[in-house]
Amino acid sequence: MAGLVLARVCGVPFVLMHPAPCFRMPNMSMSRLSALSGFQTLFIGPGQCMFPPPVVLPPCTSVQSVSPPAESTTSTSIYRVIGPKVSFCSKCGGPTEHCIPDGEERLRAICKSCGIVHYQNPKMVVGCVVAHEDKVLLCRRSIEPSYGLWTLPAGYLELGESAAEGAVRETWEEAIAAVDIEAPFALLDIPRIGLSYILFRAKLRTLDFSPGIESLDCALFHIDDIPFDQVAFSSVTVALQLYVEDYKAGRFKVHHGVLDKRMGSSPSDPSGYTFRDHISN
Amino acid sequence: MAGLVLARVCGVPFVLMHPAPCFRMPNMSMSRLSALSGFQTLFIGPGQCMFPPPVVLPPCTSVQSVSPPAESTTSTSIYRVIGPKVSFCSKCGGPTEHCIPDGEERLRAICKSCGIVHYQNPKMVVGCVVAHEDKVLLCRRSIEPSYGLWTLPAGYLELGESAAEGAVRETWEEAIAAVDIEAPFALLDIPRIGLSYILFRAKLRTLDFSPGIESLDCALFHIDDIPFDQVAFSSVTVALQLYVEDYKAGRFKVHHGVLDKRMGSSPSDPSGYTFRDHISN
Repeated sequence: MAGLVLARVCGVPFVLMHPAPCFRMPNMSMSRLSALSGFQTLFIGPGQCMFPPPVVLPPCTSVQSVSPPAESTTSTSIYRVIGPKVSFCSKCGGPTEHCIPDGEERLRAICKSCGIVHYQNPKMVVGCVVAHEDKVLLCRRSIEPSYGLWTLPAGYLELGESAAEGAVRETWEEAIAAVDIEAPFALLDIPRIGLSYILFRAKLRTLDFSPGIESLDCALFHIDDIPFDQVAFSSVTVALQLYVEDYKAGRFKVHHGVLDKRMGSSPSDPSGYTFRDHISN
Repeated sequence: MAGLVLARVCGVPFVLMHPAPCFRMPNMSMSRLSALSGFQTLFIGPGQCMFPPPVVLPPCTSVQSVSPPAESTTSTSIYRVIGPKVSFCSKCGGPTEHCIPDGEERLRAICKSCGIVHYQNPKMVVGCVVAHEDKVLLCRRSIEPSYGLWTLPAGYLELGESAAEGAVRETWEEAIAAVDIEAPFALLDIPRIGLSYILFRAKLRTLDFSPGIESLDCALFHIDDIPFDQVAFSSVTVALQLYVEDYKAGRFKVHHGVLDKRMGSSPSDPSGYTFRDHISN
């Protein structure tokens, strides 16, 4: 137990989290703990309220209320868990309440009518770093967010396909380019927005490519000429930086790391994130 | 367009898919196309019906109906898409209908009241191959499915954590073992059930470990003594096989591959799957 206390503040369910290192993950840093405390967390000090007046909600019978350890000096820190809101049950249509079920430690949406727990999990974005000789294929976005900026072909993994199949499909859709997957390249997580990028290295089959419906343009950029000041997403910036480093070092690794997005920063803001916990094989 | 036709058969929404190689993914094999055709697909021949009598449903206004190419010889093949059912809108509680929205190619649940599209995507299971010298740490499950069988510590990635953080958390929860992540190891997809396993190599910090609440037992197994006939999940079998191969070859790679589960097979059935499209760096 990590010192979790469920509370309702202004009618909004909150998780009060003891921010001292948690005994279940004894090596966890404050930044990791902050990331773990929830999806798009907000720090709210005592007496502050950013939300509408209180609404009386029926009691949540299965709430766990665990007091923070006595040594805590910051036990009134409140983090709001904002995952995509589930107000009604997708199976029966009944209203939900947000509780920490018995035996768990996380806030879940539970149907008051049929009792189903609606788990919410991160989503995967799959894509390719498509290479041709010493160049990579980028697409200029024709849609928001980041209209007009350059990105790797990538999109949400769909049910029924593998990550590599999804990456091939997205490359076809965004760059009308047929590619062969060569190897995994990077797993880049953005916990604040519940996304994990899974990127592969791939090769163009032919030099035929053209913008798909979500692209204004597609082009091959030499690795020394990548327009880093016009990249659509920080995850793409990091992936391209890692690719260039590996290319110049003469060996491609497989990378994992975490992007901590700064609250309120745009997806393409070059100073809107920090990249941490980078590992590779 | 891949020759998709939405139909309702016995009141159940179906996707009729032209199973010839699709021009958007010209290299796609039949098995890949079958996997792409949907989550837990069923092949149903002409005249067959496995479901209750027809129910008249309101028309779905945004259905795309695209005829299969003229050269198709098997255009009456019908695959049922069975993703987790979304019958009601999680935002407003209104009923949904299942359509292919304009500009898309996949069946989605769309709220008839507020119009929101409820996208459903695969989930990530994160875990560790925990090594100590020439041994790996396995946990014997105390819960279904696969009660009493051995597995790697792994579980669903939660909102707000990175894949590595989730893998460390699951290892703590299932084996009360503190580990340090060393490198990515495998991404193993099971499209039929909408799961992607993301596994890391990790080292035990100390030799202290003990079964968590979901485990009957935890033990270190020499890589030549892994109980492959008592492994809980086919994904874990594949991961352990790849680990043993890499260990014996003296170099750990990062692997990606796809497990095609046979319909109706148990999670631990050693003949219940095929492993395909294996790549590594």
